[in-house]
Amino acid sequence: MNIEGNLIIGYQRVRGASGELYAMNAATGERLQPGFGGATQLEVDLACEIAWRAFDLYRQTTPEERARFLDAIAENILELGNTLVERCELESGLPRARVEGERNRTVSQLRMFADVVREGDYLEARIDLAMPERKPLPRVDLRSHNIPVGPVVVFGASNFPLAFSVAGGDTASALAAGCPVVVKAHSAHPGTSELVGLAVRKAVEECGMPEGTFSLLFGSGREIGKMLVLDRRIKAVGFTGSRYAGTELVKEAAARAEPIPVYAEMSSINPVLLFPGALEARCNEIAETFVKSLALGGGQFCTNPGLVLAVEGTALDQFLDVAASELRKVPAATMLTDGIRRSYEIAVADMQARRHVETLARGGQAMGHGQAQAALMVTNYQAFKSDSQLSEEMFGAASLVVRCPSLDAMLDLMESLEGQLTVALHVDESDYSDARRFIPTLERRAGRVLVNGFGTGVEVGHAMVHGGPYPSTSDGRATSVGSLAIRRFLRPVCYQDMPETLLPPSLQSSNPLELTRRFDGKLSLIA
Amino acid sequence: MNIEGNLIIGYQRVRGASGELYAMNAATGERLQPGFGGATQLEVDLACEIAWRAFDLYRQTTPEERARFLDAIAENILELGNTLVERCELESGLPRARVEGERNRTVSQLRMFADVVREGDYLEARIDLAMPERKPLPRVDLRSHNIPVGPVVVFGASNFPLAFSVAGGDTASALAAGCPVVVKAHSAHPGTSELVGLAVRKAVEECGMPEGTFSLLFGSGREIGKMLVLDRRIKAVGFTGSRYAGTELVKEAAARAEPIPVYAEMSSINPVLLFPGALEARCNEIAETFVKSLALGGGQFCTNPGLVLAVEGTALDQFLDVAASELRKVPAATMLTDGIRRSYEIAVADMQARRHVETLARGGQAMGHGQAQAALMVTNYQAFKSDSQLSEEMFGAASLVVRCPSLDAMLDLMESLEGQLTVALHVDESDYSDARRFIPTLERRAGRVLVNGFGTGVEVGHAMVHGGPYPSTSDGRATSVGSLAIRRFLRPVCYQDMPETLLPPSLQSSNPLELTRRFDGKLSLIA
Repeated sequence: MNIEGNLIIGYQRVRGASGELYAMNAATGERLQPGFGGATQLEVDLACEIAWRAFDLYRQTTPEERARFLDAIAENILELGNTLVERCELESGLPRARVEGERNRTVSQLRMFADVVREGDYLEARIDLAMPERKPLPRVDLRSHNIPVGPVVVFGASNFPLAFSVAGGDTASALAAGCPVVVKAHSAHPGTSELVGLAVRKAVEECGMPEGTFSLLFGSGREIGKMLVLDRRIKAVGFTGSRYAGTELVKEAAARAEPIPVYAEMSSINPVLLFPGALEARCNEIAETFVKSLALGGGQFCTNPGLVLAVEGTALDQFLDVAASELRKVPAATMLTDGIRRSYEIAVADMQARRHVETLARGGQAMGHGQAQAALMVTNYQAFKSDSQLSEEMFGAASLVVRCPSLDAMLDLMESLEGQLTVALHVDESDYSDARRFIPTLERRAGRVLVNGFGTGVEVGHAMVHGGPYPSTSDGRATSVGSLAIRRFLRPVCYQDMPETLLPPSLQSSNPLELTRRFDGKLSLIA
Repeated sequence: MNIEGNLIIGYQRVRGASGELYAMNAATGERLQPGFGGATQLEVDLACEIAWRAFDLYRQTTPEERARFLDAIAENILELGNTLVERCELESGLPRARVEGERNRTVSQLRMFADVVREGDYLEARIDLAMPERKPLPRVDLRSHNIPVGPVVVFGASNFPLAFSVAGGDTASALAAGCPVVVKAHSAHPGTSELVGLAVRKAVEECGMPEGTFSLLFGSGREIGKMLVLDRRIKAVGFTGSRYAGTELVKEAAARAEPIPVYAEMSSINPVLLFPGALEARCNEIAETFVKSLALGGGQFCTNPGLVLAVEGTALDQFLDVAASELRKVPAATMLTDGIRRSYEIAVADMQARRHVETLARGGQAMGHGQAQAALMVTNYQAFKSDSQLSEEMFGAASLVVRCPSLDAMLDLMESLEGQLTVALHVDESDYSDARRFIPTLERRAGRVLVNGFGTGVEVGHAMVHGGPYPSTSDGRATSVGSLAIRRFLRPVCYQDMPETLLPPSLQSSNPLELTRRFDGKLSLIA
């Protein structure tokens, strides 16, 4: 499978007719070959049309067929071998170990969703049997389960060229739900996207899935994304990226004749709360792990610790000393794109220029193209409270520490923050009673509350929530990581008094799928 | 408890300062005493503020405390006795049996949600235990459950003055979830609303729930509703009403600095599909039950059968003859409000005036104030296909039958319709293979697919879905009837490596709530 710069529309590889875009070598700024043809409205239309036509067929494949399809995608991605890893390294500037780790994550994510489909709990099958003798009125037979919403558009994310891109979490969960997917590739890694797209296309063919189950489009600018979101055959959107782009998509989707849900994961500064007991007991250790988390992957994680709140005092001073000295040792990191690097530098410069913000340390200077320097700044409670710009995201390895006069002031700041993906508490047993007071606020302000750790490292499991109140995401009722992510692409349908032969298998009395179902709301492990 | 025309703001009964509104006797058009003072921005602000302050306290009550509170509301509604029933009859024009039935439904709905809270499944507790030895990286301990979203605004519905009003399904599910509720009473039944509001207020006090858990506001016009939806402390909205009002609320909520979900149940014509075998075998019986369903409650149900599709032929002719003759016997019904009656008459007159629409029969003429006449019309496939106005809702006892040249034409029309709450199939065994072809379309077009029945009569159970694709509701992922309705007011939160003592009870290893939880995604009936 070679990178040819072509769109994938169903089974076809088509040259996009709208201009040409090139990937850049993130570490050198050199243009990488080949050029990628951008999709026109015609190609968008075609991809959406075949996705729509595939929908009823695809969603009626058996769980085992769909699970094998997901497994086949995983297999085909692994088969791309070093071709994929090397191209991804070039395009993203991420080190090989990270790319390989991300590939593993992508593959296990697909396999997890294959298991989710096999298990069938996501269908939430419910049966309330008829009661013909009930007084004053007989009860009808009611059965409900979830069906997929329809074709989904997925926007590849720049910072996870594999795990949140062409066959990443959004695509895997949408395909698992039974939704055809049209991916808009991120322009920062088109070659990686095409390779993975070919792996998916191959799986579609191998597994006999209907043409249109998957398409991949390239295109620069916002136009193609907007066309996709406005297409009447698209029924939901998955997006990871900037707040600006995310809110634009949300607005466009809401203005459609038939509004559709947009699951946009947008921005978060992931507050870290250092409690006095923990700081007293192990401020050096916390400072070291904090800087490691901050610098990881050039700080280009949605869950990067961009804000630290702590009560002022000698322990905090020592934390700052150690963190500053650790940060100075952080080598400059190649950022994903030149645009991201520029935005980062502007954000850091803006922050440094604010009144009452002091720069404590910078990381190693940029040695090559596209590199950026880590940054650690400090401010005080009053300044943070009165200047809303101090709580804006700096996407990259920069963090702001706020010296608070008291725990109450810390809680007050936490209450005033916007919605977050994560919030981390560092506590010792002596802090528990104070921490307990914080929890109601933290639950309301974040999707994940974590103790004595940092938000970077988002486990793909069943209890994970990678989501959070607006504006960390556009829809705080959802998660984009973990098995619950499938729910974003489902809606319930009820069947009343339907003969066994017309019922979907998940609701037939004979229970051919051997599902755990609810009878009158009560789970029944044995059918 | 007397009707005084006062707002209920927390524990207080306050005279609203913004004008005065009166209920009308639906059957006579006479003004009923007393006048109700409308809320000002100040009172909206106060209700939202105390709701916000109550939120953390209310949501941390134990399941048993919250369940008792819901049971107490039910008890207090019953204690209102005939005072409530009589006022509701006067204001709504609904017959006593219907009002009593609706009261029972309201009470059982509250008790069902009490059971849902006691059982705790809605929390969806999930635990992925730590794996410190996992390679290459240890796994952290992750636990997630659902928490309530925050204070909810509920708009009372005109057509269910009890079951979808002050203490109806939206309020019951929001309170069950742990959300304080601010109700905007429907101006058509303010006395009923105040009485029920007092019953809720009494339960708040008796059960020691925090002040602000419940408030009730009156107000004419759209202003007060808009103020509520725009208030930053409100986190979700439940609404049942017209498409116009619903879409306005959706737009307002989407334009907030922090957009919030609006669950608006708006409009539906609930297609009825008559298959040839069923028509052949029992067209008289179907015609009779169809007219009964159409005329029920003056046709003022969201699930009223407003459209019938069938293949032309002698069986359909006979169906039409019988339905026409049954419809002529339907006495004129008092409608809920004069406004609804006027809209109904305009909608019917507009439909009758369309080209290719023939009026088959009208029901009995209006004999008194506020009454409206049932109507049955017929058109053909081509006309229906080419005139989108023929698929518009006529809220009341009016229905349009479309003669289709074939089953394929019927399917084609079904595919072209907007989203619906329900679709009903009338089939015999000989129709099953044809019906099977329809099901994928029906699932995509409706929230409930029912066989050999009509959508009126919405069972409050666990498998019910009273929802459907846009524009039948604003959010097809939700149901507003049945135990699943609680999910509208929840969002997931994850706790990572949190010490047992800081975890919420639902996620503590000791499982004090004795919940069924998921370990690594697998249900465990025994903790």
